[in-house]
Amino acid sequence: MSSSPLSASAVTVLGLGPMGRALAGAFVAAGVRTTVWNRTPGRDRELVERGAVGAASAAEAVAASPLTVICLVNYDATDAVLRQDAVTAALKGRTLVNLSADVPERARDTGRWAGEHGIGYLDGAIMTPTPTIGTPHAVFLHSGPEELHRAHRPVLDALGGTHSHLGEDVGRAAAYDIALLDVFWTAMAGYVHALAVARAEGITPRELAPYAQGIGAILPSLFEELAGDVQDGGFSGEGNPLTSAVSTMAHIVHAAEAHGIDTGVMRAAEGLARRTVALGHGADGFSRIAEVLGRR
Amino acid sequence: MSSSPLSASAVTVLGLGPMGRALAGAFVAAGVRTTVWNRTPGRDRELVERGAVGAASAAEAVAASPLTVICLVNYDATDAVLRQDAVTAALKGRTLVNLSADVPERARDTGRWAGEHGIGYLDGAIMTPTPTIGTPHAVFLHSGPEELHRAHRPVLDALGGTHSHLGEDVGRAAAYDIALLDVFWTAMAGYVHALAVARAEGITPRELAPYAQGIGAILPSLFEELAGDVQDGGFSGEGNPLTSAVSTMAHIVHAAEAHGIDTGVMRAAEGLARRTVALGHGADGFSRIAEVLGRR
Repeated sequence: MSSSPLSASAVTVLGLGPMGRALAGAFVAAGVRTTVWNRTPGRDRELVERGAVGAASAAEAVAASPLTVICLVNYDATDAVLRQDAVTAALKGRTLVNLSADVPERARDTGRWAGEHGIGYLDGAIMTPTPTIGTPHAVFLHSGPEELHRAHRPVLDALGGTHSHLGEDVGRAAAYDIALLDVFWTAMAGYVHALAVARAEGITPRELAPYAQGIGAILPSLFEELAGDVQDGGFSGEGNPLTSAVSTMAHIVHAAEAHGIDTGVMRAAEGLARRTVALGHGADGFSRIAEVLGRR
Repeated sequence: MSSSPLSASAVTVLGLGPMGRALAGAFVAAGVRTTVWNRTPGRDRELVERGAVGAASAAEAVAASPLTVICLVNYDATDAVLRQDAVTAALKGRTLVNLSADVPERARDTGRWAGEHGIGYLDGAIMTPTPTIGTPHAVFLHSGPEELHRAHRPVLDALGGTHSHLGEDVGRAAAYDIALLDVFWTAMAGYVHALAVARAEGITPRELAPYAQGIGAILPSLFEELAGDVQDGGFSGEGNPLTSAVSTMAHIVHAAEAHGIDTGVMRAAEGLARRTVALGHGADGFSRIAEVLGRR
């Protein structure tokens, strides 16, 4: 038996894709008694060799621990597992933490279902890739009843990294997740487009990368500045008005199209900027677009 | 007289918008004899008080120095100044550095025009905002004849920061500029969109900002990794295949539209990812999109 202070704790992990296996592996490594299950059998072999208990069914897995963590591709997948009568019944009086990714409304819907069936429910989002799990670099966002979060935090801490409880609204972690992935994937779309444009101009990816890293490095302080603008309604365009941004964006579209490169992303961004200028905000900063986007 | 080692040097600055004034001010501060001109009169007053010489015409300004730096809104504006007979004649045998922003083909066109008129021509891009000029934080990109760049580098160094000569192709600085601004403005569009989505979910801009800064902080190392993928044709999607990105992007679109928020930018990015998956690259990483975008 492990002598870890967590050895009296127990957790069940449902779903053994790459992330589920990383989560279960971190629990095992921390000395938490870990029961695992996956729809497709065989995925638990390595974990069982390391000390996890393989369950024959999801209901049996859930019954083995006071806390169940589920991590599947989305909430259609978690519904298909959790909303089977035997699984729902086994969860009654226990706590479920859903670390799958989906939209906030699905998290809230799962919260309602859990409440109707006497299941303690926390929703979460994992903001970092699988290799970070069990290390200080992992970032977890949680939402739902704070008391439940506090009660299960010692076991969740076995996953390493930082765990932030963002509020009682069970959809809040998913809302942060969506907004942060919006920043991430849009920025990534900009970068792969820039690599294509640069290449068409005879600039290799490795030649561009150090300069692109310089652009990336200035984003965090701008993010802070723009958040202040939007929250306080400042929108100062001093030194960099929206009209300049529009002019630059038009250059980018023109240069990319000269090489036959799709410009849908930049055209859409330019369209938002032009629409904001047309509403009379041309002298404002780029942050004004957030306010215009949010108008109903 | 200034005792600076640059006191024997002289430069002319054409265009006294915010950036032109910053450039001229940095030259004056470094002890370079600086002649200034702007189409709209009166913009030179503060500079003249600090020691700059105000010229009555662009031709007179150009004739005062071996080196002229021009910084206007775009190349339509620089053409309107430079391609007047008196100005073109005054530039003959001198060097012109164009720090205005436009597409690479306009820079190359200006290079051809300069060559036809016996004018030494360097094209450049300023990657940092006006407050950085004259400080170590300024970033300048240059392209054109390396010999010319070397000859004028001592005076250009008065502008502070780093000056990179990117190659003999006069359009190269503009090409870097376009690609880097593509990354920048696309990322900014993603962030203002995320602020709007977060706000609709009850998350304030200042609540989101620290997490968004965390996303920004991981971009530089990903930029390096993706550059390697595209340059070497690796495109490994291990742990994060394009199919996952598509699924996440669909969640973002769905969540934003549930709040009536425009999703044109993310839909365009999602479209690129779906198109790349449809071409058989679903197991590849996001970097594959750069290769697909570049196909003719």
